[in-house]
Order: sequence, then C-alpha cells, then structure tokens
Amino acid sequence: MFTVTVRDHMMIAHSLRGEVFGPAQRLHGATYIVDVTFRRAELDADGIVVDIGRAAETVRAILVELGYRNLDDEAELAGTNTTTEALARIVADRLADRVLAGELGAGARELDGLVVTLHESHVAWASYERPL
Amino acid sequence: MFTVTVRDHMMIAHSLRGEVFGPAQRLHGATYIVDVTFRRAELDADGIVVDIGRAAETVRAILVELGYRNLDDEAELAGTNTTTEALARIVADRLADRVLAGELGAGARELDGLVVTLHESHVAWASYERPL
Amino acid sequence: MFTVTVRDHMMIAHSLRGEVFGPAQRLHGATYIVDVTFRRAELDADGIVVDIGRAAETVRAILVELGYRNLDDEAELAGTNTTTEALARIVADRLADRVLAGELGAGARELDGLVVTLHESHVAWASYERPL
Amino acid sequence: MFTVTVRDHMMIAHSLRGEVFGPAQRLHGATYIVDVTFRRAELDADGIVVDIGRAAETVRAILVELGYRNLDDEAELAGTNTTTEALARIVADRLADRVLAGELGAGARELDGLVVTLHESHVAWASYERPL
Amino acid sequence: MFTVTVRDHMMIAHSLRGEVFGPAQRLHGATYIVDVTFRRAELDADGIVVDIGRAAETVRAILVELGYRNLDDEAELAGTNTTTEALARIVADRLADRVLAGELGAGARELDGLVVTLHESHVAWASYERPL
Amino acid sequence: MFTVTVRDHMMIAHSLRGEVFGPAQRLHGATYIVDVTFRRAELDADGIVVDIGRAAETVRAILVELGYRNLDDEAELAGTNTTTEALARIVADRLADRVLAGELGAGARELDGLVVTLHESHVAWASYERPL
Repeated sequence: MFTVTVRDHMMIAHSLRGEVFGPAQRLHGATYIVDVTFRRAELDADGIVVDIGRAAETVRAILVELGYRNLDDEAELAGTNTTTEALARIVADRLADRVLAGELGAGARELDGLVVTLHESHVAWASYERPL
Repeated sequence: MFTVTVRDHMMIAHSLRGEVFGPAQRLHGATYIVDVTFRRAELDADGIVVDIGRAAETVRAILVELGYRNLDDEAELAGTNTTTEALARIVADRLADRVLAGELGAGARELDGLVVTLHESHVAWASYERPL
Repeated sequence: MFTVTVRDHMMIAHSLRGEVFGPAQRLHGATYIVDVTFRRAELDADGIVVDIGRAAETVRAILVELGYRNLDDEAELAGTNTTTEALARIVADRLADRVLAGELGAGARELDGLVVTLHESHVAWASYERPL
Repeated sequence: MFTVTVRDHMMIAHSLRGEVFGPAQRLHGATYIVDVTFRRAELDADGIVVDIGRAAETVRAILVELGYRNLDDEAELAGTNTTTEALARIVADRLADRVLAGELGAGARELDGLVVTLHESHVAWASYERPL
Repeated sequence: MFTVTVRDHMMIAHSLRGEVFGPAQRLHGATYIVDVTFRRAELDADGIVVDIGRAAETVRAILVELGYRNLDDEAELAGTNTTTEALARIVADRLADRVLAGELGAGARELDGLVVTLHESHVAWASYERPL
Repeated sequence: MFTVTVRDHMMIAHSLRGEVFGPAQRLHGATYIVDVTFRRAELDADGIVVDIGRAAETVRAILVELGYRNLDDEAELAGTNTTTEALARIVADRLADRVLAGELGAGARELDGLVVTLHESHVAWASYERPL
C-alpha cells in the first residue's frame, strides 16, 4: 500500500455546544494544520499515487471555503458541532466529492481511501479515515 | 473511522537487561513524549470521539504514576524489561483499565481501540495498538 | 548567557483592521503555540535560570486570561490590532509585570530579559523581545 | 500490535519523467527524511520488536547506497521514475531482503511488516507498507 | 525588538568543491526548508513588522529562481561553493535587494535586518543574519 | 553573521537537589535533544562555518562521555546540580576546549561563539551561549 500526504492549514473562529467543552463553549478560534493522505494499492503509469500539485490545489480550495470565517455563521454547517473530529470528516468528504468528480484527474478515481488529520495544537489532533 | 490524539510526556530512569542493549544496560534515563490515540467508528452525540479534557487528565494520571522515578525500583514492574515498546503497552493497558472502569465517562466504552506511541528521541519511537 | 524556554498554547477568535490583512479582516481565529524564553547572565544558587514550574504556571495564567475568547470583545484590547506581533508583546509585557511583582520568586528579578514567540501556523510566527 | 520506528535521511539528485511533474522534470534534488517502521505482533524474549541498533545500521547502509548520488545515473534504477513513492518502495524492498537474509538477527524474521516513509519537505511525504 | 518569520522550501541539485565535503563532492541534492525572519524595532501603523502576504510572495519568487535546478549550471552562481551557509546568504541578499527596491512596500524600508535559515535535514541547518 | 547547527541526543539518569525541583529531586532521567550552533562572522575558503562532519563527530564524542550514565555517579560532576541549563554549559565548555585544542581543524579557531540548546521535552528547553 502506498500513501502520499500533503500539509496545509486554515484559521477559523467557532464555538462548541455542550457542557463537555467547558470554556470552548465561548466564541474562540483555531489554526488547524491539515494533513491529507491519499491511499492507493499500486502506483500509476507515472509512478505516483496522485498528481501532488493538483492534490495540493484541491485541498487549498477546500480550506479557502472554510478558512478566515466564523464557522458558527456558515449556513452549510448549521446544526453541526464543528469539533476537530467533525471538521476532519467535512474536509475528507468534500475532497472525496471532488476526486469522484474528476478534479484530480481520471486516474485519481483508483485511489483507495483518504485520511484527513487536523492538528489543533502541538498537543492535540484528530483524524477521519474513509474509503473512496 | 475517527481518532483523537493527545500528547504529554514523562521523564524516567531505568536500565535494560540483555546484551543487545549495549551501553543502555547501564542505569540511564529517558524523556518519553507520549501520544495517546483513541479510535472510534462513529462520533457521539456531542460530535466527539472522547472528552478530550478527561482523556488528557487520565493520561496525565498514568504518567504521574510512572514519571520522575527509577523504573528499576518499581515493584509493579519487577521482571519487566522496560523497553520503549514494553512501556507503550503498560501505558495502553493501564489506560484501557481506566476507560473500562468508566473514568472517561460511560460513552468512552464505545471506543474501538487505543494506540500509545512513546518517542524516546527525535530519531526513535515505538507504539502499541490494542482494541478496547 | 543562559536561557530557559517553556511552550504552551491558546486558542482565540479575532479580526484584523486594515486592507493589508485581506481575508483576515473577517472574524476568524488562531491557535497560537506560545514559546516564552527567560534570559539570564548567570544561574542562581539552585543552578537554574528560573523556577520552571512557577514559570509555566504564570505563563498558563496569562494565556487563560486571553484564551477561549473573541479578542474583538475584550475591553483591555480595545483599539489594539491583535496581530501575532502585537499579541507577542502583550504576553511579554504581562509576564514582565508578574515577574517584577515577585510572582516567580525574588530571584527572578535578576532575569535580564524575555522573548515571547507566537506560532500562528507551521509556516508563520512572530516574536517580541524585551529587557526586564 | 507493536511497532518501532527509526529516522535517518539521505540527499540525492534526480529528475522526473512526465508532464505531470512540471518543473521537477528538470534535474534537481531532495533531502528525504526517512522513517522506517518495523511491525510485530508480539515482543521477543528481550522485550523488543527488533534490535534497534542493528536496525539503524541496516537502514543507514541502504541510504548510503542511494545517497549523495544523481539517481538518474544509477544503473539499478534505470527505467524507474524515482518519485518519493517509488523510492519508499525501493528502500522497503531492499530492507526486506536484508531482514530475510538474517542481517537483523534470526528473530527479525518474525517481523510482520515494514512501513517506509520519505518526507521530501515539511509539507509533503509518501510511504510504502509491505508485509515481511 | 519584533520579528516575523515565514517558512517555505526549495529543492535543488548541486555538488560541493573541496575535500572537506567527502561524498558531497558528488552531484547530489537537497530540500532546503527556508525560514526568513524580518526584524524591526517598532511595529508600523497596522501593528505589523511587514505585510506577511507580500513577504511570503517575495520569498517564494526568490526560491523559484533557485529551485528545481542544478545549481552547478547556474551562471549567476559560477565560482560559488553553494554550501548551505552560502545559500542562506544568497537568499538574504536577494531579499534585501527586493526590500530596498520597495517590493514589500515603502514601510518595509524601516526593517532593521533579516535572518535566513536553511534546514538541509532534521539534524543540520545554517543561517545568515544581516542588517537592512 | 553565519551560523551552522547540528542536532544529536543523549539519554541520562540524574536527580536534582533543592526543594524547587519537587518530584525531580527523585532519581529520574531525560533524553536531551542537543542542538549545537557554531557562529562565525565570515565563511572560510571552502565557503563554510565549520567542517560539519568533524563538528558532528566532536559533539557525538562529548555526548558519549555523558550519555547512558547516571550523572549522580560521575566524579567530574560531583557538586554540580545537573539542571538542563547547567548541562548546556558543560557541553558548550567541553566543546570549546576541543575547538581550541584544534580538534575541528585550525580554521575552527576563527569561530566567534557557540550556543548549546538542550531540549528536555517538547515543551521545555534551555541554552547556554558563549564566545570562543
């Protein structure tokens, strides 16, 4: 099994609903360092898992949709508790949609899966893994 | 599959038994940077894998039991070669006991597994993965 | 010259005023990984620059004052553009006040200076250095 | 499941064939930070996954074969597009050969698998995982 | 004193002249993780050291001039031993020229100095510091 | 001003004397990630600050003298509280002696200074800077 991972980041404001979150129930924010891993059983004819340039651009496009925003005000996220875990899934699902729509090229449809990891600090991170 | 990871550390003295360990047979020590990963198929009603605050406190409690000690003198570890691999298992097993005892809340019993990674330096680390 | 550095973090929301900030003029947020360096020409009688435990607690107290908040709503910061550079100075100045008030012990008044570095992502950080 | 990982690096020149690589079709180079993970279900009698000293020496020997070279001129790599993914596999396969030849000791034949990760920068890395 | 640092990278091939370099006299290559620090005594009216967006673009432009190339073939570097130290100076001097030419805005001429650090691996790096 | 830095590590046991150290008064241990920085105003004829290979070997030799030991039992350290700060100075002073004795070559006597940083964990480190 082969993987390729690219790293990028986004900066957002949000608040979390639920007593379990303590002071994080207040409006605050986070930098998420975002690692996106593409998994594939065999390399393609160029010897790669995915066109890393297009992969990075697509990840960037998803993070631009979310970044420099107050996620509490985003209509698409209404009703979602935007925990680090939940955001990892949102990034992964949006990326899967783009891959399946051909944005990373026809070959990328042979990818086996994705893992998205969001680092919220140097001492805490969360990930979501899904098939493609 | 979702994961959440928290990082902490402990500082211990110990010696290792066996020719394979060379100079590490002498009494020496280590800082272990400890990454604890909680795995779970679906998020709970709050949108999380685990209450990260309680998780961090529980990991801290386990590391306080071991840290700032000479592990060669700990009765509970008598007969154990306290390699990085073995210590990763000890931390994971002690954490599993606490999770199953309800220390992280009733919901944490739905966790699927744990991974504990101990970094002994910037160039070497070991991990132990177990179901819950 | 000796230094000791401790690392901690805070998570805040804010917006920045000025065209130069582009999309960061919108309400967003950041995790700041905060490195605080204490400088001193000679070690004290215990062989240290500063009591690292008390230093870490004091840094923590300052970050709790700022963290899990929308800095745009903080009365004490009204009129301040809370850039990473400006926040580094705020943390350093608040820390200097506490050191001079004796919170780190009498010996800490012999510190020569402080450096506070705030990492806003894996690719950007800012620092402020001042004498004591 | 237990793992042990050791980190080393190599510095090489190469060029990549295929339009997908853009400017990387020109002769350029890379530092690869190389993480080699050894997987094993149970620890051996010494309480370890593998003799970490011998493991590090063997990884070093493989990286010396490749490092400080222009990979475009290496007869053994003729016909191979030396992408980060492909190099991860070459390192893993050469290591597997050495393990199976007994270079890490008789016990190392009980290893379950290897993962080799090559970091080409702070924002991109690739890995190859194989059984033993 | 305030500083702001941005991180980027470049990948190059080169060889080094002189017995002291051992195997690095052969054609090989490197990824350089490049940290550029801007120093300034006081913040400007926006509360910043430098427009970080323009700073990052300018650093990027300099690294594009050098990256994905065999430095042994660059006419501008003929006669220069392209050690990590020497490359740090080249990046710093080219950046200083652009700052003085107004590429980072008129205010950037009030910068006091630059530090450029090139990380050639996880265990070795070099820097060059100069006034502006 | 130019600098070159090399990174290595050592693993030791020790205890600290003084109430300020709390639980660290017990016998425990540490991994120190050791960064050694060499400073020099101008590069030598080879375009370097120091022969990085010899520098790394010399640092290694000093760390071998200290590593895999209980520092409480070392005659040369009797009477020294082996805090991270104090150990940074010991490494720097031993290195300065070797540089002045010509171990890094005649040219290394033109070095202006050294900085030794010991990282005791991911959240705490200390350094000592001295002229040569």
